[in-house]
Amino acid sequence: MTKPLILITNDDGLFAPGIKALIEVVKEIGTPIIVAPDSPQSGMGHAISIHEPLRLNKVDTFGDIEAYECSGTPVDCVKLARNVVLKGRMPDLCVSGINHGSNVAINILYSGTMSAAMEASLEGMNSIGFSLLDFSFDADFEASKPFVKEIIEYTLKNGLGENTKLLNVNIPKLPQEEIKGFKVCRQAKAGWKEDFLENKDPLGKPYYWMSGEFVNNDIGEDSDVWALENGYISVVPCQHDLTAYKAIKGMKALEKLNKGNSRQNSVDSGTFESY
Amino acid sequence: MTKPLILITNDDGLFAPGIKALIEVVKEIGTPIIVAPDSPQSGMGHAISIHEPLRLNKVDTFGDIEAYECSGTPVDCVKLARNVVLKGRMPDLCVSGINHGSNVAINILYSGTMSAAMEASLEGMNSIGFSLLDFSFDADFEASKPFVKEIIEYTLKNGLGENTKLLNVNIPKLPQEEIKGFKVCRQAKAGWKEDFLENKDPLGKPYYWMSGEFVNNDIGEDSDVWALENGYISVVPCQHDLTAYKAIKGMKALEKLNKGNSRQNSVDSGTFESY
Repeated sequence: MTKPLILITNDDGLFAPGIKALIEVVKEIGTPIIVAPDSPQSGMGHAISIHEPLRLNKVDTFGDIEAYECSGTPVDCVKLARNVVLKGRMPDLCVSGINHGSNVAINILYSGTMSAAMEASLEGMNSIGFSLLDFSFDADFEASKPFVKEIIEYTLKNGLGENTKLLNVNIPKLPQEEIKGFKVCRQAKAGWKEDFLENKDPLGKPYYWMSGEFVNNDIGEDSDVWALENGYISVVPCQHDLTAYKAIKGMKALEKLNKGNSRQNSVDSGTFESY
Repeated sequence: MTKPLILITNDDGLFAPGIKALIEVVKEIGTPIIVAPDSPQSGMGHAISIHEPLRLNKVDTFGDIEAYECSGTPVDCVKLARNVVLKGRMPDLCVSGINHGSNVAINILYSGTMSAAMEASLEGMNSIGFSLLDFSFDADFEASKPFVKEIIEYTLKNGLGENTKLLNVNIPKLPQEEIKGFKVCRQAKAGWKEDFLENKDPLGKPYYWMSGEFVNNDIGEDSDVWALENGYISVVPCQHDLTAYKAIKGMKALEKLNKGNSRQNSVDSGTFESY
């Protein structure tokens, strides 16, 4: 029986305790191959490097486990892993993380961890992004490990079905015995209220530094935020089709705009009564 | 009658002909306010700057139109516009682009243009991202302008309904009279087959440079790719809930994993027959 090939990446780089915990789990299950950024890439979202070359260096950070650091973004790491390191060979699974800090709700869009996992799913792999609700560098990943192992084994055995190739998994910061298990849920309707720290640099020139507060007004008990707040590990199956299908019908009037008329002249904006 | 306040941004920076064309349209309709990156930010996706300060400089590039350049990503530009430039005042609309090159299908995830528009929609504005199917710097935006004006006016007058706050608009590279009008459609199931140029730098060290080919196997006539190939302007209403709802039910078995058992010991992976 061939062991499954499992691609590991993250957005915090090779020295983050989170990826070390993930590697420890994966090496019990399959053959890990690691391609991770050579610098912190939190908040890089789905960024890719178009205008510059990428570096890829083999490292022996994890003994005999094949590992590379890459100068690009988390999404670059996955693309390089597939096309250069693995020369097109398809891993059986991609896992990303374990991120230091939550990636619930809309954070999936900002998160390098989740964007790497999303990219892997776009490339055709089943993929899981893991995050622990603890932002600190020395977060304790021990309680997470048996659950991470369980859901990786579940996915390898059962697949993810035809409607998703990507799971967004967030783990509460709780002792292992207090974690109630997995809850399959939807992305909460929650987001950020930004605030910018405004200050001056040593030359007196102003700068702005982003900060913010996570705001959740979603009271549903089927959301990822609810699951976490109630001691569960949230599991959101994700897709990359962003079409708002329900909105299509209501917008069909757009297709009738100026139908049959020449658009040589711009539309008479006097016909619009309000704005 | 107060003119609508329209926030303009892009990912190519203030000197791109695409944003100039957009500004020319917007100033006929409302009061433009411009916050755009001070360097090219194509492919930056939904990246945000967490680990570094941002600069924001007022510029007189467009005469008496209020305009700023920002050192951050397209998403940073929108966040700074809302929180610092406008001090929380809500624009009536955000428009992003006009991008030099298509942002159909999955490109919405990689595109700085679309991510800026997505961010504006997350902040509560109706928002439209525009792209022309011409990658060249000196692309001709004249044919696009009456259509851009038309859909902006439509959106200001009618809103976008309760199911979307974001439109992904792609315009074919055709003479104005050959453009057949708007087609409201879904995101095509199409993506990239990457290739990496591998070469050596002057010191003999290898580097990799991403390239790729856009591959569309989606034969549906309701997709954005189809619309564009057939002379229409594609309009995809978008959402930011990435939950794959259809996948939730099939994954409920996860919630029963080890239910009631202690997870002090890791799962016996011998129970998994195949992988």
